[in-house]
Amino acid sequence: MAEVQLPAGFQAAGVTCGVKNPTAPKKDIALFVSDRPCAAAGVFTTNLVCGAPVKVSRERLPRNSARAIVINSGNANAATGDQGIADAEAMTARVAGHLGCAAEDVLVASTGVIGRFLPMDRLFTGLDLAVTRLATSSANLLDAATAMMTTDTVPKLSTRSVTIGGRAVRITGVCKGAAMIAPNMATMLCAILTDAALEPATATDMLKVAVADSFNCISVDGHESTSDSVMLLANGAAEAAVATDADQATFQQALNEVAQELAMAIIHDAEGAHHFVQIDVTGCRNRDEAFKIAVAIANSPLVKTAICGADPNWGRVVSAAGYAGVPLLETDMTLTMNGFRLYEAGRPLAFDAAAVSAHLREHRETTIHLELTHGDAAVRYWTSDLTKEYVELNADYTT
Amino acid sequence: MAEVQLPAGFQAAGVTCGVKNPTAPKKDIALFVSDRPCAAAGVFTTNLVCGAPVKVSRERLPRNSARAIVINSGNANAATGDQGIADAEAMTARVAGHLGCAAEDVLVASTGVIGRFLPMDRLFTGLDLAVTRLATSSANLLDAATAMMTTDTVPKLSTRSVTIGGRAVRITGVCKGAAMIAPNMATMLCAILTDAALEPATATDMLKVAVADSFNCISVDGHESTSDSVMLLANGAAEAAVATDADQATFQQALNEVAQELAMAIIHDAEGAHHFVQIDVTGCRNRDEAFKIAVAIANSPLVKTAICGADPNWGRVVSAAGYAGVPLLETDMTLTMNGFRLYEAGRPLAFDAAAVSAHLREHRETTIHLELTHGDAAVRYWTSDLTKEYVELNADYTT
Repeated sequence: MAEVQLPAGFQAAGVTCGVKNPTAPKKDIALFVSDRPCAAAGVFTTNLVCGAPVKVSRERLPRNSARAIVINSGNANAATGDQGIADAEAMTARVAGHLGCAAEDVLVASTGVIGRFLPMDRLFTGLDLAVTRLATSSANLLDAATAMMTTDTVPKLSTRSVTIGGRAVRITGVCKGAAMIAPNMATMLCAILTDAALEPATATDMLKVAVADSFNCISVDGHESTSDSVMLLANGAAEAAVATDADQATFQQALNEVAQELAMAIIHDAEGAHHFVQIDVTGCRNRDEAFKIAVAIANSPLVKTAICGADPNWGRVVSAAGYAGVPLLETDMTLTMNGFRLYEAGRPLAFDAAAVSAHLREHRETTIHLELTHGDAAVRYWTSDLTKEYVELNADYTT
Repeated sequence: MAEVQLPAGFQAAGVTCGVKNPTAPKKDIALFVSDRPCAAAGVFTTNLVCGAPVKVSRERLPRNSARAIVINSGNANAATGDQGIADAEAMTARVAGHLGCAAEDVLVASTGVIGRFLPMDRLFTGLDLAVTRLATSSANLLDAATAMMTTDTVPKLSTRSVTIGGRAVRITGVCKGAAMIAPNMATMLCAILTDAALEPATATDMLKVAVADSFNCISVDGHESTSDSVMLLANGAAEAAVATDADQATFQQALNEVAQELAMAIIHDAEGAHHFVQIDVTGCRNRDEAFKIAVAIANSPLVKTAICGADPNWGRVVSAAGYAGVPLLETDMTLTMNGFRLYEAGRPLAFDAAAVSAHLREHRETTIHLELTHGDAAVRYWTSDLTKEYVELNADYTT
């Protein structure tokens, strides 16, 4: 993996404190710190059952004075009641004490086992250590990305550099996520850092746009985690304000790319997956309808098992669209898989099933394109196939 | 299996015509005929992509002059365009010709491969044969139930006898369904016959009620078939009209029981399932909210794999409720699995995980009871676990 740089004015650290696995310790605390106050925004799970860190961070955002994001893996601090809230707040206060800022200027996320209290002694020791290890290096950023991992097999990083007002601006994101494995809720967490200057309200709007076409367009198993969090810090160290419409468009495009690259990395690393599946639904009346159809296709176990088996099973795709809650006729739909046209305007086409199946089997990336005749709206969505390994990973565990 | 009787005035037949498997023929035509005109009602898939027989039968219902239901397995006659409609109509006309009634008085359903035209020559030969084999015997009814099967491992029948207006009335249902396997769309088809006398409008209302708490409360994989059909014929041969409120309550109860027994039989026969899962969601504001929560739990691959692995994973159940689209707090929920209380009013309880896991492993039936504090509404829902065998059955097939 190419080295990924932090934006100006940011430091990171990833250390081991023994939350994740006391007997065979792995990095489990990630810390991201800005040398100056940041505009901060967040987008969180809409699950009404959510972890304590989600509640704590959500309440603090948007804000214009954030300094840090602290993340632990190995324990999600979810279903832990008032004690969990107090523990999440204590994590931020501990970091704030070192940085000399208010606890509210530190954001927090946790991922891992649910229903257990955080081992605060170990965690405090780890937080104290992390602060001493902060540095601007790519190696430190990689350590932090590694410390966020649970069932992930690789750390996930993405960066873009763009010119805003004549100055170079960097956007760097790190994330983790593979699926939910409980009681390890292997949720999706993402921290995005930039040295551009943004208003908190603008940061929030732009983050929502980026998330809509990235993290909200991926699904491994359709089970929405209790802890999903995407947080953005903008510290202005590049002395470039995202002010004009043109600047905003440039910055939004780069932010979208970082978010999409990270979201796709999650699907590439999906538990037990053999195929990375890209679903394009086009020709819809509006984005909402395209999105509903894409989600219905992506979450159908029959579609996902067909892809696992390299079966060009157009009937499963078309029938999933039929129950997506979008008004449509069979004759409105044309389906192409891996470039092979299988179904056109309601009619199954004759095709060389063996050849298409071989193509599906031999390529890790599967593309599904469902074209409708209703309008110009489209959505691109990513998912994985459903394999025996997924069932093994998620079943052969005993609480 | 105990012998199941037909209601008075009905005959059935199940014969082989070679649609299902020309090289190793199995019974593939089921015919149910009343000796007099029936009130008829139907409930069909809400999938907008639906088979030709659904379109043909739906248009003919409700009616007061139906005489027969004809069903073939091996070919779903779906995604077959205008030719499919013509073929479905031709099936009904062929039967009607033998019975001396209008084609519109014959209802039709098909299940099996999609996207292929019916082999009408073979089908006509089979229909002609079926008419000659009609009889009132339990053996014939069993033949008909067997002829409906696709991936089912057992025929599915249920019957109840109740007293209406002092006279014995029988309700007998047969169904098939195990999941969708494409291109075999192993859809759910059900024919319910009764010798009670009903108005078509009443029959429709009562069938809707029965379906709501039975076939609409089961899910194997959440993928709604293109061909699901439940049809009811009431021929009045028992000379007992369901007229008073008390009669209606008695009849409805028996109809509900037949429908529920058949729906549960489908889940017991679900593809690759190791566990039969009964989900009770109680204490809700209204049935719709209870239903949404039950569906979210039943369709979560993480819940289904946890049960496969005998993992008492309360976090997956509670978090599925959290994204069901129902306003709720963690503290509103209490969860019991197989009689073990795992989570109470938002707090995880201490429990003997090994003992609960052993109980889950040793019992084919898993019970999940999620109690809310919002009101008195409840739903009972049935599903199966998600196993490696399910993935094998649905993936290791090549078109």
